[in-house]
Amino acid sequence: MSQNIYDDPDFFAGYSGLPRSIGGLASAPEWPALRAMLPDVRGLRIVDLGCGFGWFSRWARESGAFRVRGIDVSEKMLERARAATSDDNITYFQADLETMRFRRDCCDLVYSSLVLHYIEDLAALLSKVHTTLVPGGHFVFSIEHPIFMAPRNLAWSRDADGRPIWPLDSYFAEGERTTEWFTPGVVKFHRTMGTTLNALINAGFAIRHVEEFVPSSEQIVAQPELAKERERPMFLLVSAQRV
Amino acid sequence: MSQNIYDDPDFFAGYSGLPRSIGGLASAPEWPALRAMLPDVRGLRIVDLGCGFGWFSRWARESGAFRVRGIDVSEKMLERARAATSDDNITYFQADLETMRFRRDCCDLVYSSLVLHYIEDLAALLSKVHTTLVPGGHFVFSIEHPIFMAPRNLAWSRDADGRPIWPLDSYFAEGERTTEWFTPGVVKFHRTMGTTLNALINAGFAIRHVEEFVPSSEQIVAQPELAKERERPMFLLVSAQRV
Repeated sequence: MSQNIYDDPDFFAGYSGLPRSIGGLASAPEWPALRAMLPDVRGLRIVDLGCGFGWFSRWARESGAFRVRGIDVSEKMLERARAATSDDNITYFQADLETMRFRRDCCDLVYSSLVLHYIEDLAALLSKVHTTLVPGGHFVFSIEHPIFMAPRNLAWSRDADGRPIWPLDSYFAEGERTTEWFTPGVVKFHRTMGTTLNALINAGFAIRHVEEFVPSSEQIVAQPELAKERERPMFLLVSAQRV
Repeated sequence: MSQNIYDDPDFFAGYSGLPRSIGGLASAPEWPALRAMLPDVRGLRIVDLGCGFGWFSRWARESGAFRVRGIDVSEKMLERARAATSDDNITYFQADLETMRFRRDCCDLVYSSLVLHYIEDLAALLSKVHTTLVPGGHFVFSIEHPIFMAPRNLAWSRDADGRPIWPLDSYFAEGERTTEWFTPGVVKFHRTMGTTLNALINAGFAIRHVEEFVPSSEQIVAQPELAKERERPMFLLVSAQRV
């Protein structure tokens, strides 16, 4: 079973204070790019893997989705999601994505934001996502970019001119990465770009679009600290389709 | 028209001395991975874009290809390729890949090794490759990895422990990169991973396999200088299919 770091009190307190936890999708700089990769959600049956506070689930219903099931490992997050929602067509379930069972052919869109890097057996999960989608159904997700996850030392460095560089190493050393994020011991799984894309293809998906999040000029004006995100990709966004 | 750096005397002399120029495919460490991504070539009509000294063309015929057309911008390289070949079913043509015209539906496999990073308008070339393939035809290529091409300063650095790091920056600054390789002023074009993969998808290809070249343990034992290639990807290898 995956680590459930979200229910750790220190982690939860830190995570709850993130701009995207407070402000929702509008505070996630990659959201406009991810939204542009979604099909028209009107009338769709959607599953949100790792729904967190439920921001996407609510957006999807407001945008005309037929129903949304939000799934998360963290009861604390689900409690808050439920408290913020009054919509009979959104239901939240607690489950570990690595062990839960999926219904077959019951869903038009599976969405997952910044969760898959916590999954150890990605191939197994992708196979289940494929099964739960109807033929032609969409899978749209974001994940931490392997270039962002790979290095032993996850910190910006500077070159001789004082300009930021990302000290990449260990790209092909796939597997567990234990990092500190609000609390020590946060476990993630690094996979190369090739490994992730081939896992999708081998699970029966056609890759429709691959995006590496880069902030827009407007976003950098509003949040100058985002400028460094033009030097190396932080998030990988993928749209795929069950064929 | 693309730069033809290959006919520059200094470049040609330096390039001709590379292990892969002397020893052919067996001296290209990524060749086993690329070969594994090829369809069975027996009976196929093949085009080799940027055929250089013709090593792949000869391998393909020896492996049972029906015919191979090798295309290169460099007359000097083609002269040597022709001199080394006595096979009526291999023909070599001089052409600029950016401006040449392709016949329609006449080819089962298009192959290209480490050439596409010299192409400025990749979308236009991919569209022509798609056209020249029969439906179901394969396109297998290698290209310098964007992580390898991106940095302003293309040189290994070391971390505080003395271990090699690749100082990544400028990943999203796509476009021309002028570097020194045997001679100053070698012009290449940097594109993100997303840009290259989406160009393929938009040209009508289904992506079948994405590989980032990493040397095997045996290769590192034989060539210890390859060990650093485990820190960051140097080559991107892609197999796609006209659908």
